[in-house]
Amino acid sequence: MTDNPVKGAPLARYAASKRVGDFIFLSGVIAVDPTRHLVISSFDDIPGEVADKIGRTGEFSSDIKKGAILSQSWYVLDSIQHIIEREGGQMSDVFKLVQYFRNLDHFPYYSQVRALFFPDTPPISTIVEVSAMLPNEKVLVEVEATAYLPLDGNRNL
Amino acid sequence: MTDNPVKGAPLARYAASKRVGDFIFLSGVIAVDPTRHLVISSFDDIPGEVADKIGRTGEFSSDIKKGAILSQSWYVLDSIQHIIEREGGQMSDVFKLVQYFRNLDHFPYYSQVRALFFPDTPPISTIVEVSAMLPNEKVLVEVEATAYLPLDGNRNL
Amino acid sequence: MTDNPVKGAPLARYAASKRVGDFIFLSGVIAVDPTRHLVISSFDDIPGEVADKIGRTGEFSSDIKKGAILSQSWYVLDSIQHIIEREGGQMSDVFKLVQYFRNLDHFPYYSQVRALFFPDTPPISTIVEVSAMLPNEKVLVEVEATAYLPLDGNRNL
Amino acid sequence: MTDNPVKGAPLARYAASKRVGDFIFLSGVIAVDPTRHLVISSFDDIPGEVADKIGRTGEFSSDIKKGAILSQSWYVLDSIQHIIEREGGQMSDVFKLVQYFRNLDHFPYYSQVRALFFPDTPPISTIVEVSAMLPNEKVLVEVEATAYLPLDGNRNL
Amino acid sequence: MTDNPVKGAPLARYAASKRVGDFIFLSGVIAVDPTRHLVISSFDDIPGEVADKIGRTGEFSSDIKKGAILSQSWYVLDSIQHIIEREGGQMSDVFKLVQYFRNLDHFPYYSQVRALFFPDTPPISTIVEVSAMLPNEKVLVEVEATAYLPLDGNRNL
Amino acid sequence: MTDNPVKGAPLARYAASKRVGDFIFLSGVIAVDPTRHLVISSFDDIPGEVADKIGRTGEFSSDIKKGAILSQSWYVLDSIQHIIEREGGQMSDVFKLVQYFRNLDHFPYYSQVRALFFPDTPPISTIVEVSAMLPNEKVLVEVEATAYLPLDGNRNL
Amino acid sequence: MTDNPVKGAPLARYAASKRVGDFIFLSGVIAVDPTRHLVISSFDDIPGEVADKIGRTGEFSSDIKKGAILSQSWYVLDSIQHIIEREGGQMSDVFKLVQYFRNLDHFPYYSQVRALFFPDTPPISTIVEVSAMLPNEKVLVEVEATAYLPLDGNRNL
Amino acid sequence: MTDNPVKGAPLARYAASKRVGDFIFLSGVIAVDPTRHLVISSFDDIPGEVADKIGRTGEFSSDIKKGAILSQSWYVLDSIQHIIEREGGQMSDVFKLVQYFRNLDHFPYYSQVRALFFPDTPPISTIVEVSAMLPNEKVLVEVEATAYLPLDGNRNL
Amino acid sequence: MTDNPVKGAPLARYAASKRVGDFIFLSGVIAVDPTRHLVISSFDDIPGEVADKIGRTGEFSSDIKKGAILSQSWYVLDSIQHIIEREGGQMSDVFKLVQYFRNLDHFPYYSQVRALFFPDTPPISTIVEVSAMLPNEKVLVEVEATAYLPLDGNRNL
Amino acid sequence: MTDNPVKGAPLARYAASKRVGDFIFLSGVIAVDPTRHLVISSFDDIPGEVADKIGRTGEFSSDIKKGAILSQSWYVLDSIQHIIEREGGQMSDVFKLVQYFRNLDHFPYYSQVRALFFPDTPPISTIVEVSAMLPNEKVLVEVEATAYLPLDGNRNL
Amino acid sequence: MTDNPVKGAPLARYAASKRVGDFIFLSGVIAVDPTRHLVISSFDDIPGEVADKIGRTGEFSSDIKKGAILSQSWYVLDSIQHIIEREGGQMSDVFKLVQYFRNLDHFPYYSQVRALFFPDTPPISTIVEVSAMLPNEKVLVEVEATAYLPLDGNRNL
Amino acid sequence: MTDNPVKGAPLARYAASKRVGDFIFLSGVIAVDPTRHLVISSFDDIPGEVADKIGRTGEFSSDIKKGAILSQSWYVLDSIQHIIEREGGQMSDVFKLVQYFRNLDHFPYYSQVRALFFPDTPPISTIVEVSAMLPNEKVLVEVEATAYLPLDGNRNL
Repeated sequence: MTDNPVKGAPLARYAASKRVGDFIFLSGVIAVDPTRHLVISSFDDIPGEVADKIGRTGEFSSDIKKGAILSQSWYVLDSIQHIIEREGGQMSDVFKLVQYFRNLDHFPYYSQVRALFFPDTPPISTIVEVSAMLPNEKVLVEVEATAYLPLDGNRNL
Repeated sequence: MTDNPVKGAPLARYAASKRVGDFIFLSGVIAVDPTRHLVISSFDDIPGEVADKIGRTGEFSSDIKKGAILSQSWYVLDSIQHIIEREGGQMSDVFKLVQYFRNLDHFPYYSQVRALFFPDTPPISTIVEVSAMLPNEKVLVEVEATAYLPLDGNRNL
Repeated sequence: MTDNPVKGAPLARYAASKRVGDFIFLSGVIAVDPTRHLVISSFDDIPGEVADKIGRTGEFSSDIKKGAILSQSWYVLDSIQHIIEREGGQMSDVFKLVQYFRNLDHFPYYSQVRALFFPDTPPISTIVEVSAMLPNEKVLVEVEATAYLPLDGNRNL
Repeated sequence: MTDNPVKGAPLARYAASKRVGDFIFLSGVIAVDPTRHLVISSFDDIPGEVADKIGRTGEFSSDIKKGAILSQSWYVLDSIQHIIEREGGQMSDVFKLVQYFRNLDHFPYYSQVRALFFPDTPPISTIVEVSAMLPNEKVLVEVEATAYLPLDGNRNL
Repeated sequence: MTDNPVKGAPLARYAASKRVGDFIFLSGVIAVDPTRHLVISSFDDIPGEVADKIGRTGEFSSDIKKGAILSQSWYVLDSIQHIIEREGGQMSDVFKLVQYFRNLDHFPYYSQVRALFFPDTPPISTIVEVSAMLPNEKVLVEVEATAYLPLDGNRNL
Repeated sequence: MTDNPVKGAPLARYAASKRVGDFIFLSGVIAVDPTRHLVISSFDDIPGEVADKIGRTGEFSSDIKKGAILSQSWYVLDSIQHIIEREGGQMSDVFKLVQYFRNLDHFPYYSQVRALFFPDTPPISTIVEVSAMLPNEKVLVEVEATAYLPLDGNRNL
Repeated sequence: MTDNPVKGAPLARYAASKRVGDFIFLSGVIAVDPTRHLVISSFDDIPGEVADKIGRTGEFSSDIKKGAILSQSWYVLDSIQHIIEREGGQMSDVFKLVQYFRNLDHFPYYSQVRALFFPDTPPISTIVEVSAMLPNEKVLVEVEATAYLPLDGNRNL
Repeated sequence: MTDNPVKGAPLARYAASKRVGDFIFLSGVIAVDPTRHLVISSFDDIPGEVADKIGRTGEFSSDIKKGAILSQSWYVLDSIQHIIEREGGQMSDVFKLVQYFRNLDHFPYYSQVRALFFPDTPPISTIVEVSAMLPNEKVLVEVEATAYLPLDGNRNL
Repeated sequence: MTDNPVKGAPLARYAASKRVGDFIFLSGVIAVDPTRHLVISSFDDIPGEVADKIGRTGEFSSDIKKGAILSQSWYVLDSIQHIIEREGGQMSDVFKLVQYFRNLDHFPYYSQVRALFFPDTPPISTIVEVSAMLPNEKVLVEVEATAYLPLDGNRNL
Repeated sequence: MTDNPVKGAPLARYAASKRVGDFIFLSGVIAVDPTRHLVISSFDDIPGEVADKIGRTGEFSSDIKKGAILSQSWYVLDSIQHIIEREGGQMSDVFKLVQYFRNLDHFPYYSQVRALFFPDTPPISTIVEVSAMLPNEKVLVEVEATAYLPLDGNRNL
Repeated sequence: MTDNPVKGAPLARYAASKRVGDFIFLSGVIAVDPTRHLVISSFDDIPGEVADKIGRTGEFSSDIKKGAILSQSWYVLDSIQHIIEREGGQMSDVFKLVQYFRNLDHFPYYSQVRALFFPDTPPISTIVEVSAMLPNEKVLVEVEATAYLPLDGNRNL
Repeated sequence: MTDNPVKGAPLARYAASKRVGDFIFLSGVIAVDPTRHLVISSFDDIPGEVADKIGRTGEFSSDIKKGAILSQSWYVLDSIQHIIEREGGQMSDVFKLVQYFRNLDHFPYYSQVRALFFPDTPPISTIVEVSAMLPNEKVLVEVEATAYLPLDGNRNL
């Protein structure tokens, strides 16, 4: 798999992100590859070096059990990073995350991946478990991010 | 049914909308007629010409099966439009929607109605399925909208 | 139980609140005592005079049935008040609440407590029932608040 | 709604009450209006001043969530009072209550209403949750009362 | 099947009935044949002429569907009659019935049989659906009766 | 645990027992220690010598599996005995028991304990399984007893 | 309710019946009143004298429990009779019935009504329980009939 | 078991088959022995040589697991054959089968038996899984057959 | 995908259709491609121009949610058309449809497709929801059609 | 019932036990009487004196509730004893037991029976609850035993 | 598919087999192809001649219904044979099998395949149904085998 | 918590381990502290340095979600090590593990802990998910180990 430049592109009739005053608001992002119309569901669906970095063990059973949530967590946060950078910002400009899970037992895996994207001051955070997300039951996590990128360039939060 | 001027009025002790700086924040809106204390649940609960426009077929079984979600979708978005207009704005000022469904299989119907309200640049969007909404199990969709109406009148997003 | 000064402290790697321009955004707050690592689950977990004020009857069965939601409702809103005050604001600066419940039948109890914290103009409000929240199934309500505290001190919403 | 004189009349082939020696035994009473063939299911089904006294808030969502159990609790106990009074007694002559609920989470609401009918010495009480009651699933509580009205008029229990 | 003289005999260590002052209290009665250790479960388990009288149609499917509840209803009430008569009374002395069902949809069948045993003034009555009864899941109805048989012989209720 | 003198005290606004003519009626009794506000749930919650007498084996797994129902059965019947004795009677004056279980598979354990309290003529008995009891899901059995204690002292039933 | 001349009219885009050679084929018929757009669901929805003939007892609880299936059974078969008669035939020309139920426990009630429509030689019959029917969950029975009406008028089957 | 001459006789008030023009229509047939009022449920309920031919292995566990569906499949098709032959036709005259299953995992077993009855040109076929069949939950398959037997004897389909 | 000439070929040992006198009877048809052994489950499994005609929107989430039922509806009716035409008839010769669904909420989508195949006089119709169909849980609809094609060529129904 | 000499005989194509070096390995044993093809399911299925020894009370309800597991426990361990003795060993040679239950609430009953077979040094033990066992759902416990019987006769473990 | 030489290779960090004294112990084996990382789930996943030998019929629906369990049964036992042969033994050296199923209705299919691998003296056998196996829900059967291969070459069991 | 010397002591009447010839067989081990009668259920129940080594993060929510399985995995394997060492062996002498889980999604956590105890040649392994284990539902994993410790001291496996 090669790194996809249109990551985070909307799956339907909606905008992926919008600047409004000093803010960048993002649509809820899920782990769907827009060009392959594929829901990310295992380590095989993301670049190998990423898989190794976020927890692939090489054990078939372990990798099947935790591969989907680890891969989706990375894919979603990486997509957010792409969108923010396209807007001229960086991950540290994201100040708020609303995170929806299909199963909150997945939280420790997600949390471990999120720490890679927010090594310093973490954003504020809301987390709930919902019964389903679009487009289908393979989606395990959806993240809605908001960033602050003042038009005058002063990012001192 | 006549078009109701208090559409979107709160069902409880909360504000329907609030201006905060350049933003208009709205409470989550559901399809409840505030004067009749009635949850919209079929094409019969909305104006006839609207019902025809959003998909009434005249087939009893089809209309029962899709009437509730189509009618609620219209009622909710129409209520949002009323609130925004009362604040001096218009639907295109809405830049963000968070949408909660009781059953995501309803999404295609809702999507079809939403396109009528946002013919041009669509807002950013987050969609999840939750297990229930207020006031009861007849409610199929709740939409939380946010609009940007700069006090200086400059709406160039 | 003594009133705890670190109420609302995050349970994980995230910020409890962030100022962004004229806004204060808060993480979703749940009723967990950060020092005792305890999910609030009865009138016994909150100060006695509060318990009496929000509805303790002294009847064992009634108090068990409604104690958890009433106590959590108070604890969550009280924590939000602490955070807002730490930022130099007050409860009336909160203009928006997103409220997640495990069971919407709990709403009347929560609503009764919320009225104590917002006696005047209430915030806008979104309410949904989700299937679970962190850290475990004892959590009955989570509230995400947003406040407006202009840097120039002018709070006229 | 006007106060109904035949409250507590049986819905089927059974007696509403029977004097047996010094005792008055009552059939299990549910909240069904015998003239309208209607199961009481909201504040709208009982007199307005009663609704206000037993907890109507005016908030649509709160009133929907707790209206059914509060209204049924009042209707059932009021019916029992009518029956007892028809037999020449008064509520304080009731010495025993067996109470069946569809959902014991409703108990605090019922308990609050019951206290209005038994301000002094309360009766003995048995409470269980059953899976259903007649005539249908809208019935939330059924109460079987027994009173002691000695034929010689000496009510010193 | 011949009419069994020990009908209503207890299945465990308890008394089938007890005289207490002017009252006869009965244990809850279920449709178990004490000599055959058999739960009555079809028209074949009761006398043929009774089966015909209480609704046997001769249609195999109809008789299977309604045979169990009709036969149990008869067996239980007939057992109560035996017990009462052994105490020197008759069915009209029974003034109160508490009736437990596994499925309240069975009520119309039971009601039809009960009318045969109480052609005149019916007793007071309480009816609820419970989740199970002893000895096993085949038991569909249990009836607890109370009778008034004054020691001085004066039965004027 | 020391033997508690207020056993059987009501958990809410109701009387534990009432004399009415020659009868003593009791509220439904559950295994809750009124001073510790604790639902009895293992052999550890009752006196050690009682635990040994009613079936503690010393095997951890067996004792966990049957400890709750055996301990509750003893606690409930012991509480009833206290109430009756306070009224000047004794266990053999109890002539009727209505017994509610959360799971009728518990019956053999309860039956074994009950035999200790009623070694001679047992009372009449009704037994059903209900879906829940107050105050919470830990309660496995509730017993409603009625005793006959003629004012003239003549207890010949 | 007056007898409705368009009974059995289709609810959607399909024909109610078709003559094909010597046969009349009918669509599956359900108990929906085409003019009132109402699913028949109680004795109140059919003519009073019919209700009395097919089993109304006057007991509120019994009538609620069996009213829906008895009324639908009559309404469906009566509709079929109207259709057949419009085609110039009579009920005895119907030689085959396929009957779908939501709950086969309803069969004895249906069977009792069907016997009124087919007093002589009954048709061949297939009966199964399905999980749902159109237009909604209130529909309890659907009947598909086929009749033989030779064009030459010779109905000797 | 001896071969039963009244196989396929109706269990209720309906005809087992009817000639209509050149067609023989059959009621849905299930595996119930009309003389023993017994639902076929194991290899023991059919002739031994048949059991061996359709798959009895002699292994207790295997035979229990597949005995019911194999035996019912044979019994039903054999009954159809009896009915057709009584009408003067043979199995190859059956041109259509509608087959209802309680569990479609049973299909391979049924299919294997059906091939014995239709060695040549097989009929057209419709197969669905329904939730239940008459008379009770032991019935696993119901088959509705239609045959073409021209009155002029010309069976060239 | 290219248009497949063997559409509607049987998946097992049965005939796809049979002429019997003036009638053409068809087996129940499901959306399985006989050459690819594939259950049709998205717009990608049918020709692109068909997908566009029956409702493909280009929105990923909408198309996933309604693609399966729309595509299967088209595939099944198109297969029926192929079979009928192979017999020398046309779609308007089909006079009867029995339609089985896994979920009747799919009906409006199916109904919309069916109207394309029957623009004029529609056939008679029976519709029920069943619990499963062959070969697996991906099958959402099965249609059994019957056509009238008199051997003398006179199709005046 | 007479003591059966072929107890523990396999129900299918497998060996009941095998000597391998100094060990005797046994197949998992369940409580099926190989000659009667009967799953043991009550005290009536085992010898009377055994039933009395392992806990039969004579109370119908108690004996039904615990009869199946007590009887199966005895039957299984007794079968193991027969097999071991046939191999020339005795119960104390069994050093390991793997025990599968359908419901671990049955453990105390099983444990009580097992103590009769292993009065001295008990074997090592593994116990889990599984969802089902062969041949059907009546089987409540399966035990796999292993014994050590050195060929040189030296059993000092 | 070509026969795979590394069949039975472990999917995680564990040994496929170990010699211990005269015994060969094997890990539980499931039907996963180690090179393709594929859970065997249909006849297409195994060699064609094997598929034909173990029961492929050519009927699409039958083969889908029974293909997974038959193919997995063969694959698992064939893998065990490879492992044993690698250790210098043969299938008849396997003296014990513990077999776990997801659904015991699959047993007759497995049993039929197992007989091909153990034509002579069968091993001892334990069989239970568990709720899940690694790596995912597609796995229907897991087999743990133990073999006896004395180091001195004397295999006389 | 201090390291407990009686770890792995049996909870009931069974041996923790037994030497049989050259083998050490162990009972299934669960994470119950024998002195505190406590099921290990969080990082707080094991030594702090161990908790840190096996994955405690300090994040409250993550630690609650994965603490129970990680702690139980360590406790169980550590107990096995104690038992083996008491027998004079070491962890590398364990050649076989049968592992039962309540939820196989826990496998990756367990696998990670197991690798610490078996850094070199891992044992053979069988893993299944069962529905419950003793003593209660808090137990998430049970491990049955077998070791080879030849009496002559030669451990070359």
